[in-house]
Amino acid sequence: VNDEHVDGPVTPVDRYALRARVSAELVTFLDRHEALLASVSTDLAPVVAALRDFLDGGKRMRPAFCYWGWRAAAGDEWGSADQDRAERGGADQDSDEPAVVRAAAALELLQASALIHDDYMDGSDTRRGAPAIHRRFEALHRGGGWEGEPERFGAAAAILLGDITLTWCDELFTRCGLGAARIHAARPVFDLMRSEVMAGQYLDVVAQARGLSVSTPEETLARARTVIRYKSAKYTIERPLQLGAALATGVADGPLAAALSGYGLPLGEAFQLRDDVLGVFGDPATTGKPAGDDLREGKQTVLVALAAQQATEAQGKALRDGLGDPALDEAGVGELRSIITRTGALAEVEERISELTRTALAALEPAPITAESRAVLAELAVAATARKV
Amino acid sequence: VNDEHVDGPVTPVDRYALRARVSAELVTFLDRHEALLASVSTDLAPVVAALRDFLDGGKRMRPAFCYWGWRAAAGDEWGSADQDRAERGGADQDSDEPAVVRAAAALELLQASALIHDDYMDGSDTRRGAPAIHRRFEALHRGGGWEGEPERFGAAAAILLGDITLTWCDELFTRCGLGAARIHAARPVFDLMRSEVMAGQYLDVVAQARGLSVSTPEETLARARTVIRYKSAKYTIERPLQLGAALATGVADGPLAAALSGYGLPLGEAFQLRDDVLGVFGDPATTGKPAGDDLREGKQTVLVALAAQQATEAQGKALRDGLGDPALDEAGVGELRSIITRTGALAEVEERISELTRTALAALEPAPITAESRAVLAELAVAATARKV
Repeated sequence: VNDEHVDGPVTPVDRYALRARVSAELVTFLDRHEALLASVSTDLAPVVAALRDFLDGGKRMRPAFCYWGWRAAAGDEWGSADQDRAERGGADQDSDEPAVVRAAAALELLQASALIHDDYMDGSDTRRGAPAIHRRFEALHRGGGWEGEPERFGAAAAILLGDITLTWCDELFTRCGLGAARIHAARPVFDLMRSEVMAGQYLDVVAQARGLSVSTPEETLARARTVIRYKSAKYTIERPLQLGAALATGVADGPLAAALSGYGLPLGEAFQLRDDVLGVFGDPATTGKPAGDDLREGKQTVLVALAAQQATEAQGKALRDGLGDPALDEAGVGELRSIITRTGALAEVEERISELTRTALAALEPAPITAESRAVLAELAVAATARKV
Repeated sequence: VNDEHVDGPVTPVDRYALRARVSAELVTFLDRHEALLASVSTDLAPVVAALRDFLDGGKRMRPAFCYWGWRAAAGDEWGSADQDRAERGGADQDSDEPAVVRAAAALELLQASALIHDDYMDGSDTRRGAPAIHRRFEALHRGGGWEGEPERFGAAAAILLGDITLTWCDELFTRCGLGAARIHAARPVFDLMRSEVMAGQYLDVVAQARGLSVSTPEETLARARTVIRYKSAKYTIERPLQLGAALATGVADGPLAAALSGYGLPLGEAFQLRDDVLGVFGDPATTGKPAGDDLREGKQTVLVALAAQQATEAQGKALRDGLGDPALDEAGVGELRSIITRTGALAEVEERISELTRTALAALEPAPITAESRAVLAELAVAATARKV
């Protein structure tokens, strides 16, 4: 699971002050749960403090897509699920709006859970410019002079914090304030999204294990494309959009959901390809992670698979040797970057990002959505895929 | 999180063929998700196979308490949430019954998630008489001759399988087939149960880290009691009962919920104390885990804390040295057992189990529940706390 790599405030995500309002909902939610956990034991204070810091980060991309999925569907063309509400028009949309922001904010809890577990599984030290959760709790263990291995304590804490945020995601979603029937109608999208992202995560781990020395570049490429589809394209863009739309219409699929797929899937793929490029070539100040971390972690991305496919024998060997080497230094990162560029893999991925973004934008034109949402979704597409290196 | 240590078929859990029906619901659920995951990638087949095997085990204690919480409330004294349904009486209870079995079965998915993560965190090799999930996926990695460390792959798989079962728990619960409003009304109990068990798990990890060489026996005892309350008493008995009752009444708290606490909390504490005794003195054939595993893992139980409190200096040192030593052999386990017995800790815990069970049974008498459920809950109390060594 990748984090948002968008640098600084993104205008379309900020519209209607969405970022600030999502953050405020998360703070309110944490305040309530802090009180609950404090009533259990003071030993739980570091859990809440860590989640507060962690959730303060993030660019709120998935909430933005969920929110705009709702607005896309909540307009005149579609109305809301309940005919009665639809007839009363805008007023009810306005009254539902804060609840939709809460439902959208729930997606940040899912994302936090995925990142916390992911960072531990990948052995990443940093996230959002701060120590990863497992590292933070290792430090707590060391600072307390506690028994046993700090690493084991950090691992357990990261697993449990990821678990609790995972359950909090569906808690916040379910209790967002929309009627039980409406939430129930959107559940199939919500459930599918979660199963898909976890399946994608598992496939990503398998893809890394079945790396370039076990598989052909073609097999690696095919696996990388499946991983992108489930771990990113569906999870980050298609499903959040459809979830928002289902909250508006009370229908989980149909022509509107299909139209949103036509935009969301190619855009999601482009978004992940951009992230892959940034994982290799990105500025740490932008990505919040050390330069070349994806190479050290041995991520089997489309970018890497294309480079392997088009590499000379010597380049192929250097790629296989360097990829996944935790001790890869700056020179080693530089060499792999150079191979990825010289094989033409970088150019091919850039070309593909442009093509996918064009496809996504073209799908917006005939989509049966409100004019405002069409404009904002177009802006979001550009923001999510723009070059930042 | 402990697993059920109940040996062989337990009559009260089997009533109305509940165990078989819970298992059947889990199989149906897995079949549906197997189809979904197979459509994503054949690489996901080992995930479903592992979960199928894992979920086949387990004694269905939590589903039993949920089911009997529902039956306790669904009788003449309480009726159902909807006045209209209540007036029609038994017929509607019958029609809700299969959905309640599904909602109860969802608790096995939560338990599976907790055990899968727990076994990885504890470094346990076996569960339910088979390799723990992380060990199973280590073997998959080794068998495939894949890249990277098998242990790291096993860890990632265990984390992701625990995550997916955690989301599947609320998916099955939410889509059990009861009306959206009824499920919504029971959500506060459902959500509280999950936050509590995870908080309890974290506190358990902290308790182990702040072991006997860092803390006084009194501090250890106080921590062990908090852990028991949240990780076991509430999670295993009180909340499942209240969840079932809320599904019947549409009310998450009130006098019925309080009456069920009066039974569930002491019984849950007794259940965990019995589990702690079995963790030290139990027969591997009954527990499905190697003898003395809890001692090697350094579990800071009430049993151990009492032994430490009452130990002579030499006994205290032997206890501190042996506890949490992964290399503890049979003789070492025997010595710790002997200390726990000779300090009087074992007798004190047995006494406490009896007392708590009596308290739980006494609370059933005035409880405003059906006669049948009163009888079955009494049988369940005996089954959950009986000596098996």
